[in-house]
Amino acid sequence: MRTALVIGTGLIGTSIALALSARGVTVHLRDHDPEQVRTAAALGAGTDEPAAGPVDLAVIAVPPAHISASLAEAQRQGAARGYLDVGSVKGGPRRELSSLGCDLTSYLGTHPMAGREQSGPLAATADLFEGRPWVLTPTPETDTEVLNLALELVALCRAVPVVMDADAHDRAVALVSHTPQLLSSLVAARLETADETAVRLCGQGIRDVTRIAASDPRMWIDILAANPGPVADVLSAVAGDLEETVRALRALESADEAKRGDGAAGIEDVLRRGNTGRARVPGKHGQAPTAYETVAVLISDRPGELARIFADAGQAGVNIEDVRIEHATGQQAGHVQLMVEPKAAVVLAEALRARGWAIRQ
Amino acid sequence: MRTALVIGTGLIGTSIALALSARGVTVHLRDHDPEQVRTAAALGAGTDEPAAGPVDLAVIAVPPAHISASLAEAQRQGAARGYLDVGSVKGGPRRELSSLGCDLTSYLGTHPMAGREQSGPLAATADLFEGRPWVLTPTPETDTEVLNLALELVALCRAVPVVMDADAHDRAVALVSHTPQLLSSLVAARLETADETAVRLCGQGIRDVTRIAASDPRMWIDILAANPGPVADVLSAVAGDLEETVRALRALESADEAKRGDGAAGIEDVLRRGNTGRARVPGKHGQAPTAYETVAVLISDRPGELARIFADAGQAGVNIEDVRIEHATGQQAGHVQLMVEPKAAVVLAEALRARGWAIRQ
Repeated sequence: MRTALVIGTGLIGTSIALALSARGVTVHLRDHDPEQVRTAAALGAGTDEPAAGPVDLAVIAVPPAHISASLAEAQRQGAARGYLDVGSVKGGPRRELSSLGCDLTSYLGTHPMAGREQSGPLAATADLFEGRPWVLTPTPETDTEVLNLALELVALCRAVPVVMDADAHDRAVALVSHTPQLLSSLVAARLETADETAVRLCGQGIRDVTRIAASDPRMWIDILAANPGPVADVLSAVAGDLEETVRALRALESADEAKRGDGAAGIEDVLRRGNTGRARVPGKHGQAPTAYETVAVLISDRPGELARIFADAGQAGVNIEDVRIEHATGQQAGHVQLMVEPKAAVVLAEALRARGWAIRQ
Repeated sequence: MRTALVIGTGLIGTSIALALSARGVTVHLRDHDPEQVRTAAALGAGTDEPAAGPVDLAVIAVPPAHISASLAEAQRQGAARGYLDVGSVKGGPRRELSSLGCDLTSYLGTHPMAGREQSGPLAATADLFEGRPWVLTPTPETDTEVLNLALELVALCRAVPVVMDADAHDRAVALVSHTPQLLSSLVAARLETADETAVRLCGQGIRDVTRIAASDPRMWIDILAANPGPVADVLSAVAGDLEETVRALRALESADEAKRGDGAAGIEDVLRRGNTGRARVPGKHGQAPTAYETVAVLISDRPGELARIFADAGQAGVNIEDVRIEHATGQQAGHVQLMVEPKAAVVLAEALRARGWAIRQ
């Protein structure tokens, strides 16, 4: 790939353009907002000059509602040899393109699984896609040359290509992304009217469960509006389990011991299925989830405490796989949880203890 | 307080005993399992010798099902001037004590909001309660001397006392602890039968939402069995919101534009209420949640990388408030997100850039 056209210079479009430009591809930028194009060009994402002839690959990175119109226009202009979009939903939009009479042999629907809280070209970065899955949804009518151009783009962005059927993709993101978002919001919504004293009792569990409830509603309305059916299907299944769970809890209130036994069995079933499902979530680097061991270290809130811990861990030759700062209430101290491979836990704990740290192992 | 009796030398009982012993209180240990008592005593938690006369305060730290029997027995023996328990549910157990004829003037129901994944005396640590809320549920009949002994114990454990009505406590933990646990399990349970390709698309959102779904089912069955009513009430409210959400998603599938508008409004309502509720979750040290800014640094997976980053941050005089390692799929690199006070973000980013780090700001 020597030339590309990026249509839509928001976070995703500009990040792709930055990655391609950094690897020697000539990138032309286009956006309905000339200011956004100038910003992206100033960041080194490419040029705002139009291409002299058709480019190798056009990337449609506009909001979901504008994808079909942008693709139809670009194809009418003969802007490129191949076209891909990066929308977060794939099945419905593809059917829409078909009904609009777009050429589907030169088009490939894709979805890079990356993003961040901020939007716009200023938030863009060439490494946004590094190591992330990038879903490609070819069909029998997709031109092989277009698929290979897309694979080259994914490689240049240092992402990991994953080939899927478009509708299977939509069901998958309904399950692993859209449903967790809505359930996080639903749990957080219960806190809206809670007593202040109750809110003070929040611990790390609810903090983790509700983290993504802080997401931007406008962005999520667009995403969910493009994938309502598959999300409703998963939520209905959750609602069925939830109803069973409420029934099991009510049985636990019963004076009848047999009923209480049934209730406990129902609750155990939910918790055990949760264990099994959670064990399937990939760990760091997409490998099979590893059960890391945790070494917890007591720290004060002074600058430099974390630096000293990590320096001491580094000197012990131990690789920290994940870190979590445990939040304490009402005082300036806390615990840092260092997650390491099981065989490294004892080494790390001893090394830190030898250097004067208070360890909870 | 000079003398204490800890009945039940598991994680919580032994941790309390360690904290009290460390601050000069003479602690007597008792457990139905003599092995556990010996372990706790060997760790320095106290003595397995019985006390010569009544101690100042007896701490009942046995599993929920045995609290009333343990308290009744200790009171019959005249073991202490005051008694408290540390069970995670308070209203129902209190009514049970009353019906058993226990003396409720010398008893105080309490709940330290602390714990960890492991259990048993070997997991115990004197600093388990540092900075954590410790709920006390006095009633008009509670002896003031007993309340003061409990406050002294909470202070010796360096926890933060929070006074609440017993039933209000149970509703609060149903909301902020028991409900998030079950919903995390319900989301994770959906992954049990998911396609392998779908599971590969899991990102940080679902990883956070389902983290506590890995919890021990046996412990949670005991907790939920003691608080089924309030948990069922909160879950029913969530189920109502969930039903509305499914209805809104189905409306978004409609061909009728007005219906789609209603659907979008319904989804927006859930997401915005989630924003509001999430904003109430206390941040680090129980202060009002601070909107930290994030400085993201690209790292390789070699030992010592984190140490170098934290050392460089420390030299810049910046206090890291929270850390998150962003997981990448399929390769040995990732991002570390450093969360800092907004005014420190630019300083940190510049300092790290000057030392050669690749920053995404």
